[in-house]
Amino acid sequence: MRILVTLGGTSEKIDDVRSITNHATGTLGTLIASAFEQSGATVDVIASASAIKPNESSKLHVTTIHDTYELSQALERCMKEHVYDAVIHSMAVSDFTTETVYSEEQFLTQMNQWHLAHPNQTLDKESLATFLANKPEVNETKLSSNTNHLVLFLQKTPKVIQMIKSLQPKTCLVGFKLLVDVSKDDLFAVAEASRKKSQADFVLANDLTSIAGNDHIGYLLNEHGIVAQAETKPAIAQMLVDQLKHIN
Amino acid sequence: MRILVTLGGTSEKIDDVRSITNHATGTLGTLIASAFEQSGATVDVIASASAIKPNESSKLHVTTIHDTYELSQALERCMKEHVYDAVIHSMAVSDFTTETVYSEEQFLTQMNQWHLAHPNQTLDKESLATFLANKPEVNETKLSSNTNHLVLFLQKTPKVIQMIKSLQPKTCLVGFKLLVDVSKDDLFAVAEASRKKSQADFVLANDLTSIAGNDHIGYLLNEHGIVAQAETKPAIAQMLVDQLKHIN
Repeated sequence: MRILVTLGGTSEKIDDVRSITNHATGTLGTLIASAFEQSGATVDVIASASAIKPNESSKLHVTTIHDTYELSQALERCMKEHVYDAVIHSMAVSDFTTETVYSEEQFLTQMNQWHLAHPNQTLDKESLATFLANKPEVNETKLSSNTNHLVLFLQKTPKVIQMIKSLQPKTCLVGFKLLVDVSKDDLFAVAEASRKKSQADFVLANDLTSIAGNDHIGYLLNEHGIVAQAETKPAIAQMLVDQLKHIN
Repeated sequence: MRILVTLGGTSEKIDDVRSITNHATGTLGTLIASAFEQSGATVDVIASASAIKPNESSKLHVTTIHDTYELSQALERCMKEHVYDAVIHSMAVSDFTTETVYSEEQFLTQMNQWHLAHPNQTLDKESLATFLANKPEVNETKLSSNTNHLVLFLQKTPKVIQMIKSLQPKTCLVGFKLLVDVSKDDLFAVAEASRKKSQADFVLANDLTSIAGNDHIGYLLNEHGIVAQAETKPAIAQMLVDQLKHIN
């Protein structure tokens, strides 16, 4: 059995010293990778640079990435080299990447110029895209802090999880859905919608409010509904090993 | 001798799962704290949660913080409880904190409404502040990714380093200035300006392009110019111990 596990959280650069980071320690993903290794599987791990990672061995390899783009490259490379029985995508992936950064002054100047040049015209998505594309070039590697406000425009990143089933339709894909302080019904509904959208076989639904240290309530859903649940990180790892034993 | 060392980098929340993070591993600050402890000093450390931290002992205490606000609270508490011979402020502090987040749709709607209500009026800093203050309330703990762009307005944070000399005018303050890929002349000029502004006695000037693992070129400046330089992280730590021996 060969498994691919992604873990940690991606970081999208704003400049050379600042990033937008998705919080994820990598603890759960590390436990999952180690549990599969101990069950006899060969495990490839794609981990974010700052995450806790499992120890490498002859049966466990780790590739390190920083942002969503590097994740998609690493995923593609792994999935072209190996056939995976399952892909467990526990990494918290940034939905947005930095498109443009303005100082308050740059933003106001460009906005006022746009309205002067386009009288009585409302700003719509198309004109906003043109507006952003025409930002005057400023050569800065680290943003100056000589402004009272920064205006960041972030752009949606392609959903990396969507690549997985198109690269290997037969792999068993486990997605993760983390919400914050929602009802169980809402959590399951959103998790199921995300499972369908990414063509995942399973989705691990969890809520940040029921995660604290080792305590971690996770529900494993497939097309029939909840198939298993666990209340600690090690128990979630073991639950995945147990459920995925039968996929071959 | 009692020393306060800040280390790591602050993180400003965007929502419950995302932050804007200042990269800083805490490695150099940890070496500095340990070097002072070994030289016989009592060391208080304020470290960011994700940073590498020195081991605690009877002579070394660590307080953990996340964002700029928590840093200023911790600093104030420490400086009211103890008198410090020196404060070594190596933490990378966010210059900006999240003020408002818009989806593309929310942003365009509000911007068009503003221009309808204020015909022929340019958007200036004052009206932008009113604009941001009047953002319609949306109850979200985690930003929805159902939008192609996010628009983030970030607000400048108060400079924490400015507090230090006003709390303890007699302490020896060491600031840090990190730039990216600039000439030595520019680095020294910017570092000296920042030293003066924060009333620091010394500033450690360094450039990200000459930092790689243990290699780390650092110049120590005071009002007379460069007083010492070092080329590795442990050497920078030792340089600070040597230079600050004479302050009492």
